[in-house]
Amino acid sequence: MRASRFFISTLKEAPSDAEIVSHQLMMRAGMIKRLGSGIYTYMPTGLRVIRKVEAIIREEMNKSGALELLMPLVQPAELWQETGRWDKMGPELMRVKDRHGREYAIQPTSEEVITDVVRSEIKSYRQLPLNFYHIQTKFRDERRPRFGLMRGREFTMKDAYSFDRDVEGMQKSYGIMFDAYVRIFNRFGLKFRAVAADNGAIGGTGSHEFHVIASTGEDALVYCPDSDFAANMEAAEALAIGERGAASEQMTKVPTPGKTKCESVAELLNLPLSRTVKTIALTVEKEEEGKVSKQYFMLLLRGDHELNEVKVGKVAGLANHRFSTEAEIQEVYGTAPGYLGPVSPKMPVTIVADRTVANMSDFVCGANELDYHLTGVNWGRDLPEPIVADLRNVVEGDASPDGKGVLAIERGIEVGHVFQLGTAYSEKMGATYLDENGKPAPLQMGCYGIGVTRILGAAIEQNFDDKGIVWPDALAPFQLVLCPMGMDRSEMVKAQVEQLYADLQAAGVDVIVDDRGLRPGAMFADWELIGVPHRVVIGERGLKEGNLEYQGRRDTEATAVPVAEMVAFIKGKLGQ
Amino acid sequence: MRASRFFISTLKEAPSDAEIVSHQLMMRAGMIKRLGSGIYTYMPTGLRVIRKVEAIIREEMNKSGALELLMPLVQPAELWQETGRWDKMGPELMRVKDRHGREYAIQPTSEEVITDVVRSEIKSYRQLPLNFYHIQTKFRDERRPRFGLMRGREFTMKDAYSFDRDVEGMQKSYGIMFDAYVRIFNRFGLKFRAVAADNGAIGGTGSHEFHVIASTGEDALVYCPDSDFAANMEAAEALAIGERGAASEQMTKVPTPGKTKCESVAELLNLPLSRTVKTIALTVEKEEEGKVSKQYFMLLLRGDHELNEVKVGKVAGLANHRFSTEAEIQEVYGTAPGYLGPVSPKMPVTIVADRTVANMSDFVCGANELDYHLTGVNWGRDLPEPIVADLRNVVEGDASPDGKGVLAIERGIEVGHVFQLGTAYSEKMGATYLDENGKPAPLQMGCYGIGVTRILGAAIEQNFDDKGIVWPDALAPFQLVLCPMGMDRSEMVKAQVEQLYADLQAAGVDVIVDDRGLRPGAMFADWELIGVPHRVVIGERGLKEGNLEYQGRRDTEATAVPVAEMVAFIKGKLGQ
Repeated sequence: MRASRFFISTLKEAPSDAEIVSHQLMMRAGMIKRLGSGIYTYMPTGLRVIRKVEAIIREEMNKSGALELLMPLVQPAELWQETGRWDKMGPELMRVKDRHGREYAIQPTSEEVITDVVRSEIKSYRQLPLNFYHIQTKFRDERRPRFGLMRGREFTMKDAYSFDRDVEGMQKSYGIMFDAYVRIFNRFGLKFRAVAADNGAIGGTGSHEFHVIASTGEDALVYCPDSDFAANMEAAEALAIGERGAASEQMTKVPTPGKTKCESVAELLNLPLSRTVKTIALTVEKEEEGKVSKQYFMLLLRGDHELNEVKVGKVAGLANHRFSTEAEIQEVYGTAPGYLGPVSPKMPVTIVADRTVANMSDFVCGANELDYHLTGVNWGRDLPEPIVADLRNVVEGDASPDGKGVLAIERGIEVGHVFQLGTAYSEKMGATYLDENGKPAPLQMGCYGIGVTRILGAAIEQNFDDKGIVWPDALAPFQLVLCPMGMDRSEMVKAQVEQLYADLQAAGVDVIVDDRGLRPGAMFADWELIGVPHRVVIGERGLKEGNLEYQGRRDTEATAVPVAEMVAFIKGKLGQ
Repeated sequence: MRASRFFISTLKEAPSDAEIVSHQLMMRAGMIKRLGSGIYTYMPTGLRVIRKVEAIIREEMNKSGALELLMPLVQPAELWQETGRWDKMGPELMRVKDRHGREYAIQPTSEEVITDVVRSEIKSYRQLPLNFYHIQTKFRDERRPRFGLMRGREFTMKDAYSFDRDVEGMQKSYGIMFDAYVRIFNRFGLKFRAVAADNGAIGGTGSHEFHVIASTGEDALVYCPDSDFAANMEAAEALAIGERGAASEQMTKVPTPGKTKCESVAELLNLPLSRTVKTIALTVEKEEEGKVSKQYFMLLLRGDHELNEVKVGKVAGLANHRFSTEAEIQEVYGTAPGYLGPVSPKMPVTIVADRTVANMSDFVCGANELDYHLTGVNWGRDLPEPIVADLRNVVEGDASPDGKGVLAIERGIEVGHVFQLGTAYSEKMGATYLDENGKPAPLQMGCYGIGVTRILGAAIEQNFDDKGIVWPDALAPFQLVLCPMGMDRSEMVKAQVEQLYADLQAAGVDVIVDDRGLRPGAMFADWELIGVPHRVVIGERGLKEGNLEYQGRRDTEATAVPVAEMVAFIKGKLGQ
């Protein structure tokens, strides 16, 4: 490609609504252009990266035996009603009516459509396993679109769906996809981590997220440097810290006027925060024979720990909880929030203690009385033994659940998700096959997504400096830029550029030659901003010594390379 | 590809709603699957063809200097309101509201979005010319979707948009696109014809349609076998037939009870139909100072000719005409439809005669009296000379407008359109550039579409037989199928198949080996239906003589080819 025939449009400043670095750099590099909230045009430079991402995904998906098809964007409401997602998804699902008033969803994913295709195509176990995928535009009407391609409304996703006879088969298909994802992310040249994720209603461990590691990532990833353990924060099991000591203090009511937070109580009493216990009051409403009854729960966490809501939802009886209202708290505990505690509430409350709290002794908690807390509280003596559950987020230094070391935490950006669906969709939609005995059985499904356009944002969050983007070779819009010095003045430079350009193209290098006639500073700044990973400068001075100047995007110094060796040198750099 | 790992799903019978052969064959071959009215899933076999179409388009577009980008599907209503198309397009434009009640169009084309991109990116004449394109899903809410991919609602289109400084530049860009289209359709291997099309409001000759020739096509294409003249029916100029002879008959009122059609009048009077003139009564309503006034027109056509409504709209004063109502006809002519004529209507009527009618003498027309016609009518003598215009469709045998022979007509399917837009969009949207003098001027635009998915239907309408589809090599889902006879029984066959499969792949042939273990009849029927253009049968009998059997999809007989020569033989067939 010649830059004069390409469309390069860089900006010195990013627009003010670009909050994160990847958004800022993509706007400045002229890769994307905003059309509306969360809706972008991919300009030629950006589209080149997307096509490289798609090509790698497609090659590895095909290698894994998955078959590409293309499902429609506009999907009849009836299918979404079969699975209940028409009602369940709320305003995130974009809905549209046609001229006859029939309703359609604009696809956010395609479970319904692929299950509909498969239920009419699959008759027998002989046709299984199958894995279909497509790379297609998606739309999700996010409440607050932001961060450029990271949380857009219209985006491109690769979604795959596997169909198997039984759970064993589904798990095998899942494993094949997991391995394909590892190959895909390795080929992207990105640092990534696969973490176990919560599997929602399905349960089990059949779900993993693939994250691009970046300090700006929205998600906390938990892993054990000494073992294979890795999970996202929702799914990472927190073990109990410490063992319960014997009671050594008397339970004492102490005045703590205005101290509603564990931090301020600990400060007042001159105790470490880890001696305090915080309480979270929950309400569960049940409807029986038209009457609504309420049940009250109290969760206990160590003062320095954080609640994990996903874990709370898995405690028996708490699937449909909500936080108690202030009125409920007054009624149940006889006091205001900030002074609640597990000892003698006014009304019956089910106490659920985090594993670590259950191991505490002589702890501090609210006294169920305004401006008072209790110290020296001990299980068994001052109050009954609680129900024990894992309620908290893990923290750095926690013991790994596999017993092989301590946990570390890093930040990531979710770009892929593999999921064992089981029969959740196939049963609702009647997608069955006939087994060896001619009996119908529901298909076991898996689904597998990669956010194609999101990869661009994530790759930049991981790879940038103060000059701009630093693309990995595999994703760069161009692998190499040729920068001639004074091409219009020097026949020697011009001839050498044309020769090298032809030789590199013949060698299969994705090269662009900057023939725009810009000054060196402006030219270099453009390519550093756009993030082309390799640069060769062709100038008269070097040529007179038979040399060209190579500089990698992360290099601080240029390297002189003899003209005759440059193609081989570049191929070496590209690992070809 | 191995058939056992691909998804092949053929049907003996097409569904009853498949009316045309391409729709029937695509359904039977398992290329598409209906999801809703005019909405299809492209199954793996169909998607392979789409990808080949897209790749050819992309290569030729890039070669022509056009730049690929990707514009969104969901486009803000505001842009569509700027050009007035939000109101003008009616229910064909699919509209959707987001969670905040903001309105969007689902793109049927992208003139507004590209003009918005360009108006913010283009500052100077130095950046011109530019041509951007994308290959993207489109949606048009057709009133009556039908014919499979020929008139679907969701479809894939390549749309390109050129931007130039002046009309000369625009015409040059248009010419480059025209040439690229010729290369594209030639590479598809389809018989096609480019015809001049009506340019609507823009006027001039700056519009051509590209049609795939097929006897089942919806459009009539007019061309001159002895010259370059080619136009669609709307745009093909009809010259006058014959010269006006001297009057030789007296004008006579003759009874024609119940004869309201020229055909029945001619039969009754024992005259050729070409001696009769038919009348079409039109009304034009004008609003001035809040008052609506009506003006009446009568069009005259020779009895055997057909009205061309596009041409009528171009006659001075007739841009906004409608057919007169029966009540208006009674009022203006004093009689019922079927007996109208240009001689002495009751009220003033503007008479517009087709060129051929203006050259007639001694003709027959309605008498403006129930059950009567006039014979021997002559211009100048019996009624004033009319306004003369080209009002009719051409017919086979008409003189070519370029004076170089006579016209022929064939049927075609429109799959591409190139169009000189001029400043229609850029002026409404304020898309200007600064010229050499620093003065702003509106951008001159062109737009260029190819119906990607429609190509599939059109290619099949042109290429099928009673066994199924006959793909041209360039579009076939696979170029070649290997059909082994008894692969599971014969080690010799198995070894030869694997060797040939590997050799063909190494030679770059897009080959599928049918390892499903079907009987020969069922196997051949599948591939003939799917339309793979080349087939090689590997059987023990032939192998013992050192031969394989080649058969082209259109061949009636197989050809024995020595094993060692097969790869070269196939490459020869594929023209590689």
